[in-house]
Amino acid sequence: MQPCAELIVHNIGRLATCAGGVKRGRQMMDAGMVTGGAVAAAGGKILAAGSEGEVRRAVNTDGRTKFIDARGGLVTPGLVDCHTHLLYAGSREKELAWKLAGRSYLEILAAGGGILSTVRETRRAGDEVILSETGKRLDRALAHGTTTAEVKSGYGLSVDEELRALRLIRRLGDARPVSLVPTFLGAHAVPEEYKDEPDRYVDLVCLEMIPRVAGENLARFNDVFCEEGVFTGEQSRRVLKTGLAHGLKPKIHADELAGGGGAELAAELGAVSADHLLHASPGGIRALAASGTVAVLLPGTAYYLAAGKYAPARDFIDAGVPVAVASDANPGSCPTESLQAVFNPACLYLRLRPAEVLNAMTVNAAAALGLADQLGSLEAGKSADLVIWDAPNLDYLGYHFGVNLVRSVIKEGKQVV
Amino acid sequence: MQPCAELIVHNIGRLATCAGGVKRGRQMMDAGMVTGGAVAAAGGKILAAGSEGEVRRAVNTDGRTKFIDARGGLVTPGLVDCHTHLLYAGSREKELAWKLAGRSYLEILAAGGGILSTVRETRRAGDEVILSETGKRLDRALAHGTTTAEVKSGYGLSVDEELRALRLIRRLGDARPVSLVPTFLGAHAVPEEYKDEPDRYVDLVCLEMIPRVAGENLARFNDVFCEEGVFTGEQSRRVLKTGLAHGLKPKIHADELAGGGGAELAAELGAVSADHLLHASPGGIRALAASGTVAVLLPGTAYYLAAGKYAPARDFIDAGVPVAVASDANPGSCPTESLQAVFNPACLYLRLRPAEVLNAMTVNAAAALGLADQLGSLEAGKSADLVIWDAPNLDYLGYHFGVNLVRSVIKEGKQVV
Ligand SMILES: [Zn+2]
Ligand SMILES: [Zn+2]
Repeated sequence: MQPCAELIVHNIGRLATCAGGVKRGRQMMDAGMVTGGAVAAAGGKILAAGSEGEVRRAVNTDGRTKFIDARGGLVTPGLVDCHTHLLYAGSREKELAWKLAGRSYLEILAAGGGILSTVRETRRAGDEVILSETGKRLDRALAHGTTTAEVKSGYGLSVDEELRALRLIRRLGDARPVSLVPTFLGAHAVPEEYKDEPDRYVDLVCLEMIPRVAGENLARFNDVFCEEGVFTGEQSRRVLKTGLAHGLKPKIHADELAGGGGAELAAELGAVSADHLLHASPGGIRALAASGTVAVLLPGTAYYLAAGKYAPARDFIDAGVPVAVASDANPGSCPTESLQAVFNPACLYLRLRPAEVLNAMTVNAAAALGLADQLGSLEAGKSADLVIWDAPNLDYLGYHFGVNLVRSVIKEGKQVV
Repeated sequence: MQPCAELIVHNIGRLATCAGGVKRGRQMMDAGMVTGGAVAAAGGKILAAGSEGEVRRAVNTDGRTKFIDARGGLVTPGLVDCHTHLLYAGSREKELAWKLAGRSYLEILAAGGGILSTVRETRRAGDEVILSETGKRLDRALAHGTTTAEVKSGYGLSVDEELRALRLIRRLGDARPVSLVPTFLGAHAVPEEYKDEPDRYVDLVCLEMIPRVAGENLARFNDVFCEEGVFTGEQSRRVLKTGLAHGLKPKIHADELAGGGGAELAAELGAVSADHLLHASPGGIRALAASGTVAVLLPGTAYYLAAGKYAPARDFIDAGVPVAVASDANPGSCPTESLQAVFNPACLYLRLRPAEVLNAMTVNAAAALGLADQLGSLEAGKSADLVIWDAPNLDYLGYHFGVNLVRSVIKEGKQVV
């Protein structure tokens, strides 16, 4: 007997299922497009997605089945934002004037601005302030189509503050429709109190923070900002290997502002993702392909830094590296909550085709979180997370920019926007 | 006796009045900022704007006075989008793939795509389709803070179709809260039926269209796309001089893709604005300063063209040219309705300060429409058009991107968003 659908989305103009697993190379161009189509869900999971006839044959309906009319619009999987720093207090608009006066990212950081100023504000803020400000950001992310978001710690930079951040991420994920995946990023910056002895801070991360984070099961991943002027390759290797020994899978901020062997290190350690990668070396790209590490590209940040430099996205695809695209939402180098807003620069500046961008923001982004078996595509058994767009086709998402094209968001089978 | 306010906006965190007339040079940095503040309006006009005390002393209130609480947010004049092509049918997302394959704007135009494909779709569309599609775009513009928009014809390119476009612009302006300023742009492109005899098309524009447009009082301005491969300097001069002889003030699309003396021509003819100007010559910039022509910069288009080239905004300001910033909203080279969305690239890529951008999108944009005496700043007697932002200060508008920061829009004293 066929299962009974609790939800059917019908009258879809174009359906992009992104089915078929993690995409590499030419597979990135295949977004599983179906003309027309429907999606059926029950118990928060997809029962069937495909042509209207297939779906009608695969499921039953009854008087309680809810029907949502997509009015001929495009339907895609919910967006998966696999790299964000959404948990913090305060905002940093005053740095805009510094940027416009020509001060670099690392100069602002060295002057005690940048990440460290958000650390000061976040440490000072009570839990309720952080929950309220971050909750508003998550609501905005959801309204723009994000149904799952990775969120990193990294604005605490002390044992207690890092643990507090991860606990707050858990609370927010429990309370809101957007699923949250927590990443420990104690090694986001060297805090002021350790500025003359960074290795002692790395000791703190490795000897105290990581065991506590793992012991309380507060994070799925362990990340490090491997960059000249932040953490060296050796320090990064130590942090990531310590995490591995405690069961935390590695992620890495690599080769963003200069090439530093970060891609190679990610491959060496079997990291689930390497992120930024504007300056990844050809050898690093080959190594990522061999290790199966997802390259997470963050064109919103490259746009906001305004240095005219973007990650060599085509090189990753040609080399067979699975590519994801995320927002890098953060208060310094990418102040937006909208992964959707990054779709257009991903086309124009990473030179990705719309189908490549969609795969990069859904199934491949899920892979960058180790969740590709659970979400990121519209296939039976996966989480019923989808977006109905005020757009007639997939190209339109890369074309019409500057406004929110979401018509409705469905998370685990429930219409939440 | 003091006038009685119908509307008072109070509890403003930061008020930017943009008062004091058209801004040039260092005046561009003065957005008339008041900490705290209030705005009072009646009969669709501002009665007073300034500190809460000043405003309370300047006006009376009675039981019918409506109070709007700005909840500590930023309040600015409504945005004035002084360069748009919002009236058309269809969309051109399929050109995104051509762009990504490396075809240039002029190559797409020469292949019958670009402007001419929108001309075909617009000619085919009934009035109701054009009104409905354009009305939706105007609603989106309003929701993002635009209270006045210039709209150009130019997707008709025949006598009847150009007149139809201008009549539809009038109907839309009469029916919707956004005030519309119509510009005749018969010389937007050479239509297919004249492709081998462009001068005969210029004859049509000058001998038939302009007299009819002026005779029916359908447009305030007369514009031309002066660019290599479109209309030459000589053709442009003829079109603009013919308009002048019929009482239509000149505007000009100048020096966008290559330098062609467009800025100099604008100055020679006393154009109210010269627009685009990525390749304006130093002499052209000096000439604009001398003629008082407003330089309308369109960074959204430069962003979308992704050529890494922006107008030399600082050179215009240093030379004393009044600078405006507009969306260039159009289905080919800037598919967005949101002038707000251009605030961030105006900071990051034109390197303008937030106060400069705000003046450029309000009082100077009004000047580019010959309306600086009526709107574009919050001063007694001007139109009560204002935006309450979900932002604590002006820097925030240049900082937080990718989402709509409008909390409320007031047009002629009425809350419309
Ligand atoms: Zn990051
Ligand atoms: Zn234009």
